[in-house]
Amino acid sequence: MDRIAIIGTGLIGSSLGLAIKRVGAKDLEVVGHDREPTAASKAQKRGAIDRTCWNIVDAVRNARMVIIATPVLAIREVMERIAPHLPEGCVVTDTGSTKAAVMEWASSILPEWTSFIGGHPMAGKEVSGPEGAEASLFEGKTYCLIPGKGAREEAVKAVVSLVTAIGAKPHFIDPVEHDSYVAAISHLPMFLSVALVGCTSKSPSWGEMAQVASTGYRDLTRLASGDPVMHRDIALTNARAIVHWIDTFIKELYGLRKQLLEIGDDPHAWLVQQSQSQSSEKGGKVNLDPISSVFVQAWDTREKWLAGKVTPGGRGEPGMELPGFGERMGELIFGRRLMEVHKRLLEDMQRKEKGKRPPVG
Amino acid sequence: MDRIAIIGTGLIGSSLGLAIKRVGAKDLEVVGHDREPTAASKAQKRGAIDRTCWNIVDAVRNARMVIIATPVLAIREVMERIAPHLPEGCVVTDTGSTKAAVMEWASSILPEWTSFIGGHPMAGKEVSGPEGAEASLFEGKTYCLIPGKGAREEAVKAVVSLVTAIGAKPHFIDPVEHDSYVAAISHLPMFLSVALVGCTSKSPSWGEMAQVASTGYRDLTRLASGDPVMHRDIALTNARAIVHWIDTFIKELYGLRKQLLEIGDDPHAWLVQQSQSQSSEKGGKVNLDPISSVFVQAWDTREKWLAGKVTPGGRGEPGMELPGFGERMGELIFGRRLMEVHKRLLEDMQRKEKGKRPPVG
Repeated sequence: MDRIAIIGTGLIGSSLGLAIKRVGAKDLEVVGHDREPTAASKAQKRGAIDRTCWNIVDAVRNARMVIIATPVLAIREVMERIAPHLPEGCVVTDTGSTKAAVMEWASSILPEWTSFIGGHPMAGKEVSGPEGAEASLFEGKTYCLIPGKGAREEAVKAVVSLVTAIGAKPHFIDPVEHDSYVAAISHLPMFLSVALVGCTSKSPSWGEMAQVASTGYRDLTRLASGDPVMHRDIALTNARAIVHWIDTFIKELYGLRKQLLEIGDDPHAWLVQQSQSQSSEKGGKVNLDPISSVFVQAWDTREKWLAGKVTPGGRGEPGMELPGFGERMGELIFGRRLMEVHKRLLEDMQRKEKGKRPPVG
Repeated sequence: MDRIAIIGTGLIGSSLGLAIKRVGAKDLEVVGHDREPTAASKAQKRGAIDRTCWNIVDAVRNARMVIIATPVLAIREVMERIAPHLPEGCVVTDTGSTKAAVMEWASSILPEWTSFIGGHPMAGKEVSGPEGAEASLFEGKTYCLIPGKGAREEAVKAVVSLVTAIGAKPHFIDPVEHDSYVAAISHLPMFLSVALVGCTSKSPSWGEMAQVASTGYRDLTRLASGDPVMHRDIALTNARAIVHWIDTFIKELYGLRKQLLEIGDDPHAWLVQQSQSQSSEKGGKVNLDPISSVFVQAWDTREKWLAGKVTPGGRGEPGMELPGFGERMGELIFGRRLMEVHKRLLEDMQRKEKGKRPPVG
């Protein structure tokens, strides 16, 4: 009988268990171990694992594959504990949020008769623990994979098969690149959520603000509800890359702040002035005001990302400058929806400039 | 026959139309006008309005209530256009995202035979236009209300009835306070989304990062997909308050950055050192390390907010310092879930300090 051992039956470990049980062969046994016995029991009750092993060594004994699904720092501790007990040819993988440290630990701790393939499913939700587990959590999601030094080809294939079977997309990546990218698109957002909760809730008006805070605040702070242990370990193992991205972010936000400061007390007048100064400079050709450009740019970039139109090697838009409105050019470059937004903003700006007050709404 | 006129049949205007049609009397007529005729046609097709008025003056003629649901700057233009044509006793309200400027415009532009009650439903989604409209958009949501100077009591009551009927919670508020609060919990998040899209998409690695970006990035950038015209007008009419909150946010984020910089190359060692330096300083009593404290604090604050436990006048947690773990005290102050997280982190820290490697996972 084939056996897969899941070490750490939290949200990700239990979701993997559910997903594997759904697609796995009938004679496949999934055993689970968690430092907190209640987490393992809950995972078993939810059907994520067939059997709970109270002793971690029992869990990995005779396992064909071991999936370490703990917070990052615990991965090292798990590796040290299980290393001498791993069977010949065992495939070890993990789901840790950072990868450079994990790959080093695997290389120095795991025995040569095993193969390590680092993994990171780009999926999650703010509910931690087996309670939130879902078999469909990985469907359509990118699953980063990093074969360790000396990992055998059949071990890599086994992990790729598993990842594909649960509906995810295998994505081979270098560990340092991985950590740098996730610092930008995953850890920076996490710190933004935490800092947003921090700065608003420390305000003397927090009690009042909390009454009007709604879906926008809820979504932007969602990542602050993630598991604090997982967050701590991410911070501790990827601090430098996160600091780099915090700096990049602050620079960007400060640029927006600078533009906001240039608006005076009369927004209508500011908008008219933007339009007039441009027409005199550029011989009648009018671009969007800088504030509108920022919003149009962000809107368009996100639309393209959501539509899957950002390809590796591509850099998105060349900068903040949008070309003057030209119907055919606009359609070619930005697509119809962006063109419409662009047109609407420009017409609005021109209407305000001319002081005309046509039927509006 | 009673008539309500909706000026601006975008997401909010059309959602209001749908909600009103669902609860309104049978002989109530809802007419709609939009600067863009297709938006009005779509709203009518969706059943949000009974009839489209191509001329804004026709829309407000004989209307008992006029709801201006345009981006903020257009509200002034609408007011100027409709003012002379508003019937005696007409109740005028709006749904603008900022309120101080709108209240001033109403006071100087609208005739004394009308009553203005400023409004702001704390509801939205990133899909703009009548296509995304939903009758249930306002259910359970806070709906800010600000009666204008000289607004008659029955006019205020009429708006409160409407707000209650569509399932929202009326919330009376001062316009300057409103703008300061929404700067923190709504406009700052919007700028964070925009800056996150901006700084990541300008990276030379954006094409690669876009492949691994997942739900966290999607949620944190959601507000960047809002209507650029609406965003521009928010920025133009609330710039000072937003700048204040950007500064507060940067200070908070910079504090986190500083803590990250203090972690060296060995996260295990750093954690052990935190624990040891504390025990020697505090006679054996150990608190969480500063990084964990930040995450636990944010997690707990957001949980309390989601549970509706933050009350006006309340200021949330007193600071970053969490008391040493004590079972009864913990239960009393933080509730069971927080206590468990706290305990888990402390035990993990102590285990790492003692160099013990018990079965983990």
